[in-house]
Amino acid sequence: MMLIPASDMKDLFYQVLLKHGCSNIQAQQCADIFTNNSIDGVYTHGVNRFPRFVEYIRQGYINIHAAPTLKHAFGGMQQWDGNLGIGPLNAIHATDTAMQLAQQHGIGCVALANTNHWMRGGTYGWQAARAGFVFIGWTNTTALMPAWGAADAKLGNNPLVMGLPFGHEAIVLDMAMSQYSFGAMELAAMKNDTLPVYGGFDEAGNLSTDPKAILASKRPLPIGYWKGAGLALLLDILAAVLSGGLAVHEITAQKNELGLSQVFVAIDISMLGNHSAIGNTVQAIIDDYHRSSNPVSFPGERVLQTRKRNMENGIPVLEKVWEEIKKL
Amino acid sequence: MMLIPASDMKDLFYQVLLKHGCSNIQAQQCADIFTNNSIDGVYTHGVNRFPRFVEYIRQGYINIHAAPTLKHAFGGMQQWDGNLGIGPLNAIHATDTAMQLAQQHGIGCVALANTNHWMRGGTYGWQAARAGFVFIGWTNTTALMPAWGAADAKLGNNPLVMGLPFGHEAIVLDMAMSQYSFGAMELAAMKNDTLPVYGGFDEAGNLSTDPKAILASKRPLPIGYWKGAGLALLLDILAAVLSGGLAVHEITAQKNELGLSQVFVAIDISMLGNHSAIGNTVQAIIDDYHRSSNPVSFPGERVLQTRKRNMENGIPVLEKVWEEIKKL
Repeated sequence: MMLIPASDMKDLFYQVLLKHGCSNIQAQQCADIFTNNSIDGVYTHGVNRFPRFVEYIRQGYINIHAAPTLKHAFGGMQQWDGNLGIGPLNAIHATDTAMQLAQQHGIGCVALANTNHWMRGGTYGWQAARAGFVFIGWTNTTALMPAWGAADAKLGNNPLVMGLPFGHEAIVLDMAMSQYSFGAMELAAMKNDTLPVYGGFDEAGNLSTDPKAILASKRPLPIGYWKGAGLALLLDILAAVLSGGLAVHEITAQKNELGLSQVFVAIDISMLGNHSAIGNTVQAIIDDYHRSSNPVSFPGERVLQTRKRNMENGIPVLEKVWEEIKKL
Repeated sequence: MMLIPASDMKDLFYQVLLKHGCSNIQAQQCADIFTNNSIDGVYTHGVNRFPRFVEYIRQGYINIHAAPTLKHAFGGMQQWDGNLGIGPLNAIHATDTAMQLAQQHGIGCVALANTNHWMRGGTYGWQAARAGFVFIGWTNTTALMPAWGAADAKLGNNPLVMGLPFGHEAIVLDMAMSQYSFGAMELAAMKNDTLPVYGGFDEAGNLSTDPKAILASKRPLPIGYWKGAGLALLLDILAAVLSGGLAVHEITAQKNELGLSQVFVAIDISMLGNHSAIGNTVQAIIDDYHRSSNPVSFPGERVLQTRKRNMENGIPVLEKVWEEIKKL
């Protein structure tokens, strides 16, 4: 494991992206996002994902010449086409647009069809929260979870993001509908670890904490069993209906995970009362939460610690991954 | 167990409510809601809850003379005060208002402070979906779930509702953040049943499927362990911030569950494409979902069967409960 300074990581990402045809601004923004995700400890959608992102550009799955276009606009609600452009940049644009709509209409919603993987959903929660907005957003994905009671993958893990400002920072929830990601289970399998709680079914159909058994059966567990399955279904339906884009079953029918549907809702909380009153409300909730019988963290709290550590010490990267990126 | 025709149930509710000072229209609307919840099989927030609802009116916890008042309005976003009026009627009003806002602004949001228990969240999902809108709403509650890793209740189960039209009916998800409700666990305990999946912790701090042990420890499990705990926290924060109302810790500090904060979001989907294209999108998702390896139901699907059965045969009610209501 190496420790790479954030600025070095960002520089390398930037150079690689320029080399693969990105404009200066695209390369800057994407280098920022992949580096920040890594600083925040979300390596799976940061440095570890970067080679695959570049490969998708190379293959033309991601069209770096595309920009999102407006399909329908009515008040605070807009429908956009991502034109299979760069997922994180489409999502940044959609979040910005939702915030502008919220400033004009109190609440704004951008539904984005035909986009690409947004990497880490939390990116857009932090973006909106730091700008002073409440954010609710989600994406659909390829199918990777069975419906409750069945064995074949029909549901995406459809991550849901909620965020709001908290002091100079933010509270950001970023959760997929599966109990564990495939990445987390692969890591546990590699280390011969057992999962702390059930993560899915084994091939005999029994609930299991053995990541290898779950990876073999391809039956990861939705959070809350039938409940998370229902929520995953609704998030997909709403993403497809609101954006006019593809649903999980249509994304899955393709060879690659392309043409996702996403929703971005922003609410301007500056009209809801004075800034310090809202801050006090949130602080009082967090204070009460922290008075739990044992130490507990709110969503986003541990990210701040990781961020501080990685900024000070550098970002931990597998040598193999770093060498691969240098060759891109 | 008796089988009560829906019209008889509604008549009795109506008469009882008139007797306790409700106006004709209030009594009509509340009788409708409690009867419909019972027809749909949600007895815990229908006929079985009715005596407690009347008791709250009697005690003055619910102010039948109060109507909701507008606090702030900006575009599609409004903040209302429920003035501790009748919870379900405040929620019906908030849903109507959110739909009107959506018609004017594409998306509408009503945040309602200082209201009372809305009974069944699905009521408002069905209301909006039947009128042709996408609906997202949630409420906070009194604390009844520990944060993840702790033992004392700090989180509400904060039900989340999502709905949209589907043919002549609707798809409506109505889910609390706890794996099982206390009502479900009490029923299982009464029958000496074991829960199908972990429902919480026993007093020794071990995950348990024994409803008696969980009721004794008062440590029900959030859906998806840490994930549902995080979602419950965010739903509470957003409800309190958006409505300017009480948070879970403040509701819990009172003797009774009063003064809840709720959020109602409606989106007008008629501007997003033609009705039949949207219908086809949803139908295709449900068709694919139904092609799962085993029979599966979408959220709201089994409600339709219960509704049909209870309309034909009458609503099953414990004799004891029915006698109690007749004496109110």
